[in-house]
Amino acid sequence: MQYETFNPDLLNLKATLAVVKRIKNDRAYRDRYNLFFIEGVRNFVRLADNKFKFAVILYSEKLLIAPLARKLVRQLRRSGITTIKLTPEQYRHISSYPRASGVAAVAYQHWSELNNISPCHNHCWVVLEKVNSPGNLGALIRTSEAVSGGGFILLGKSIDPFDPNVIRATMGALFEQNIIRTKHGTFKRWLGRRQYSLIGVSPDGKENFHQFKFPDQTLLFLGEEKKGLTSQQRELCQDLVSIPMTGKADSLNVAIAGSLLLYEVHRQNYG
Amino acid sequence: MQYETFNPDLLNLKATLAVVKRIKNDRAYRDRYNLFFIEGVRNFVRLADNKFKFAVILYSEKLLIAPLARKLVRQLRRSGITTIKLTPEQYRHISSYPRASGVAAVAYQHWSELNNISPCHNHCWVVLEKVNSPGNLGALIRTSEAVSGGGFILLGKSIDPFDPNVIRATMGALFEQNIIRTKHGTFKRWLGRRQYSLIGVSPDGKENFHQFKFPDQTLLFLGEEKKGLTSQQRELCQDLVSIPMTGKADSLNVAIAGSLLLYEVHRQNYG
Repeated sequence: MQYETFNPDLLNLKATLAVVKRIKNDRAYRDRYNLFFIEGVRNFVRLADNKFKFAVILYSEKLLIAPLARKLVRQLRRSGITTIKLTPEQYRHISSYPRASGVAAVAYQHWSELNNISPCHNHCWVVLEKVNSPGNLGALIRTSEAVSGGGFILLGKSIDPFDPNVIRATMGALFEQNIIRTKHGTFKRWLGRRQYSLIGVSPDGKENFHQFKFPDQTLLFLGEEKKGLTSQQRELCQDLVSIPMTGKADSLNVAIAGSLLLYEVHRQNYG
Repeated sequence: MQYETFNPDLLNLKATLAVVKRIKNDRAYRDRYNLFFIEGVRNFVRLADNKFKFAVILYSEKLLIAPLARKLVRQLRRSGITTIKLTPEQYRHISSYPRASGVAAVAYQHWSELNNISPCHNHCWVVLEKVNSPGNLGALIRTSEAVSGGGFILLGKSIDPFDPNVIRATMGALFEQNIIRTKHGTFKRWLGRRQYSLIGVSPDGKENFHQFKFPDQTLLFLGEEKKGLTSQQRELCQDLVSIPMTGKADSLNVAIAGSLLLYEVHRQNYG
């Protein structure tokens, strides 16, 4: 895919900050340049640790007190990354966090490729086509990292893992996980040629997830909040499992349902 | 505890709607009258099913199309509950939901009493002192209902289960669950006289929650997001269990951690 080149006007700080805010808040703009926005020491350090490519780093000398992060800003500047020094007021203008940490960045989105997935024993992947709540998606990515899950296969264009609210809820885990975007049809063909087993989660799944023996190479397919898996999505699945519900609740939060499954696969593999 | 009497001026609709909005948005005001605000057909029907006492019902003839809910409004009016007919515009003024369902209500908060808990086999309770995110608390209440959990024991005044954002995330489960508020000291004395086992969840818990044999009458104690259980809270616990984390994640979302525990107790009891 071709992206437009990001080329902020560094002589015009006001215009640059407007571009940064637009990358943060406007998905179409973010995708046009293949960029995303992060803030906070944890995210900044994790991005660098995971070799994400920075487009620009914005920081406030006064607000950024963590020595490690300050050192990292200097190192990245020396390596040729553009860094912009802001006043605390300018920094707060682009920040959404109540406690301004003093460091933010625009970096290039990194996507893994479906064909590069190597069938690796015990690493469960999550397949999603639609999730409405960024907080739910973020919490699920955080859980996947906690069980050393393989990552996420996103079908279609609906889900944006680089939404700032998703990033925030992942607590840095987004930058550790493999994220793949593909089309429903491509995924279906890929699945037909591989050893992976796609297991869907649905209230009418024939087996309780605690009793179901998850295959070695499991992909978990979770449906949209409220609606669950569509019939087209269910057709792709090798098996459907259910999470038992004994009270008057008729469904669970999607991040919780997915996390229960991820930990059940983990329990079956590691006890 | 003494509460002020709720006595809206029905001849002055504008003032009444202002009171309703304040009950919805202002916790201190909500608590002063021991009231809370709900909207939507599901919540309205669940409240009635669970014998909550209504203070006032607000509805729009034009927006409220669900026959069951319309019938319930008429029944409650005949039983003596004040009902106020609104125009769609007036209804939307008090509503936060994108799709205005046409029914909202102010009802009396209902609290269960610590001393009325009967030690009932297999019904796990959740103990909380602080949770920052209303969405997390709501999702946890929803999970507790899904496993027929006993309910929630809230220590101190920090947590407000009647916050509209909590109610929304519970998907109606709040009205099915027992909710108790008590003080740390009262809880400690109560615990000393009862058969319940308080099990805390902490990254340094000595046993993996999948291996730990949960006692028959388990109370799960979950700490605040980020900080976890305080030393004072840990002292109350009979055992501390941990959730294994193998990736670079150092913690889980609190609603997810709690839900994993609730389902593990459920698995051990029902397989």
